[in-house]
Amino acid sequence: MSQYIIAVDAMGSDQAPKTEVEAVLQLVDQFSNVTFQLFGDENKIAQYLQREHERIQVVHCTSVITGEDDAATAVRVKKDSSMAQAIMAVRQKNAHAVISSGNTGAYLSGSTLLLGRLKGIHRPALASTMPTTKKGQNMVFLDLGAISDGSEKNIFQNAIMGQQMAKILLGVKQPRVALLNNGTESKKGSESYVAAHQMLANETAIQFVGNIEPRDMFDGGCDVVTCEGFAGNITLKSLEGMQKAFIEVLTQEVKQRFGAKIGYLLMKPALRGLKNRLDYRKIGGAMMVGLKAPAIKAHGGSDTEAFASAIKMAVMVVEKDLTTSIATAITEATQS
Amino acid sequence: MSQYIIAVDAMGSDQAPKTEVEAVLQLVDQFSNVTFQLFGDENKIAQYLQREHERIQVVHCTSVITGEDDAATAVRVKKDSSMAQAIMAVRQKNAHAVISSGNTGAYLSGSTLLLGRLKGIHRPALASTMPTTKKGQNMVFLDLGAISDGSEKNIFQNAIMGQQMAKILLGVKQPRVALLNNGTESKKGSESYVAAHQMLANETAIQFVGNIEPRDMFDGGCDVVTCEGFAGNITLKSLEGMQKAFIEVLTQEVKQRFGAKIGYLLMKPALRGLKNRLDYRKIGGAMMVGLKAPAIKAHGGSDTEAFASAIKMAVMVVEKDLTTSIATAITEATQS
Repeated sequence: MSQYIIAVDAMGSDQAPKTEVEAVLQLVDQFSNVTFQLFGDENKIAQYLQREHERIQVVHCTSVITGEDDAATAVRVKKDSSMAQAIMAVRQKNAHAVISSGNTGAYLSGSTLLLGRLKGIHRPALASTMPTTKKGQNMVFLDLGAISDGSEKNIFQNAIMGQQMAKILLGVKQPRVALLNNGTESKKGSESYVAAHQMLANETAIQFVGNIEPRDMFDGGCDVVTCEGFAGNITLKSLEGMQKAFIEVLTQEVKQRFGAKIGYLLMKPALRGLKNRLDYRKIGGAMMVGLKAPAIKAHGGSDTEAFASAIKMAVMVVEKDLTTSIATAITEATQS
Repeated sequence: MSQYIIAVDAMGSDQAPKTEVEAVLQLVDQFSNVTFQLFGDENKIAQYLQREHERIQVVHCTSVITGEDDAATAVRVKKDSSMAQAIMAVRQKNAHAVISSGNTGAYLSGSTLLLGRLKGIHRPALASTMPTTKKGQNMVFLDLGAISDGSEKNIFQNAIMGQQMAKILLGVKQPRVALLNNGTESKKGSESYVAAHQMLANETAIQFVGNIEPRDMFDGGCDVVTCEGFAGNITLKSLEGMQKAFIEVLTQEVKQRFGAKIGYLLMKPALRGLKNRLDYRKIGGAMMVGLKAPAIKAHGGSDTEAFASAIKMAVMVVEKDLTTSIATAITEATQS
């Protein structure tokens, strides 16, 4: 069995390094071929590292990149930070993948800068597995916001990369790829979306199922939804906004009604089930795709369970060599 | 008291003309200064027009524009349709405003073509009042999708038009205007959003509160959210998508649990309250802004109550002369 090393930025999450260390402790026995390198403040890490383990290593780092740091320059300015050091470990081939919950912008810029783009890739993308309303069926959604001025070429390459993710992470043999858009007709959307539709429709290596409107994207009719990062990020944050508004207003409405209060208590397990199923952050991490090595991004608000599922994603991506699959698929696509 | 005439396309909604006729009957006594002209099949309209009324007129039309008709050409190809005739009534100054639940694309193109743009307006926009999580506090959101290749100029003018809508329809004296974006920093977003941010920040006639991410747009921190139509439509449909997914998954989760089923029954009134408060279609119609006369758009799935609230919006827009307010504000804005 091949041995792998995962570089973990232990200082990125809101509860860092507790979340990161607990997630690693939870998984270390399950993944007997994986060594975890925890990058961060060794004293703080030691507080949560309840037991020594030969496959858990700590690499002391003297600083942390925070939300205040400038995204574009953070890893260069704070070379000694846990995030920069963890990415550097992969760059120097001392680890196979990096994972962080820290400053998203800094991580996107930093991983792109230090790991580099795969040959043929115009721009990397931030991709995530997302739930559908069909239980147990997930999909891949990208770009979630790595690039905010993406062109039809980016949308097209995102489709290719998403297709490989769906194959490898979701086990879908022939992923159905849809283009996010504001209508189903081929001429819908802004200029780059009309052009991307044409490219996707002409590409034999893609099973293109046409445009999908965000209101239908959770119905389970596709395995990959591709777009550029501006619309992708707007979509993602709209989904969060409606979830937030839904819960806020439901709470207000329940409070006004005595019967509803009892109903709410009885429904709590179902509401928890709902929340777990629709929260994309619970079903794995996001990742930068299009780079020479995997960089997984867990949400800043991750709890141990969410961070652990992001680590599982990292291990799977490394074991199945998603990077090589993407590199090959991009080379083979006729319009890259 | 001034007398007004509202031209109603009676054949547009899913239940047409029942919905339209019932809504007019519901409102005719309340608005004693308004005459309603119902455009459509006179036999079908007669089925629902339970009583004669001197301020309800029926104008027989021999065809209907459906969802199958080509949006760009529908009102020209079907000149005798209820939608085209209702818009024509306003064009010929026989009515003060038009309202329809029919084919959105056809209505947008048709009203733009037949009514014409206000002087100084680059492109019209589709605007709607939207709920917030603060009970009783609504906001204006535009462009919802009239234009899918809008520039910073459109985003800027949408802000001016939305500001007038908020003043007149929501009664907000100094509307706070926000720019939809994927981050709060001024440099965030695609090229046209960065440029629009600058224009808005420089405009003294606007109380600009900066960028707003869709996840925060319902919090009540602004009265107007401006954007171009592609991101606007994607946002709107993402909100619908999450609402749909929420209800679908909640139903699945409740069905699995006996206690939750009882809880669900007890919570039904609260869930109905939630639905009514978050459904933007319930709180008034959308409208085309930037045209020489008001064209109100009710949702195709409108029930009587929803269509009636769209009619109320039409009356208010006419009585308060929103069109002149917009024309004046556009002329006065320094960067139009």
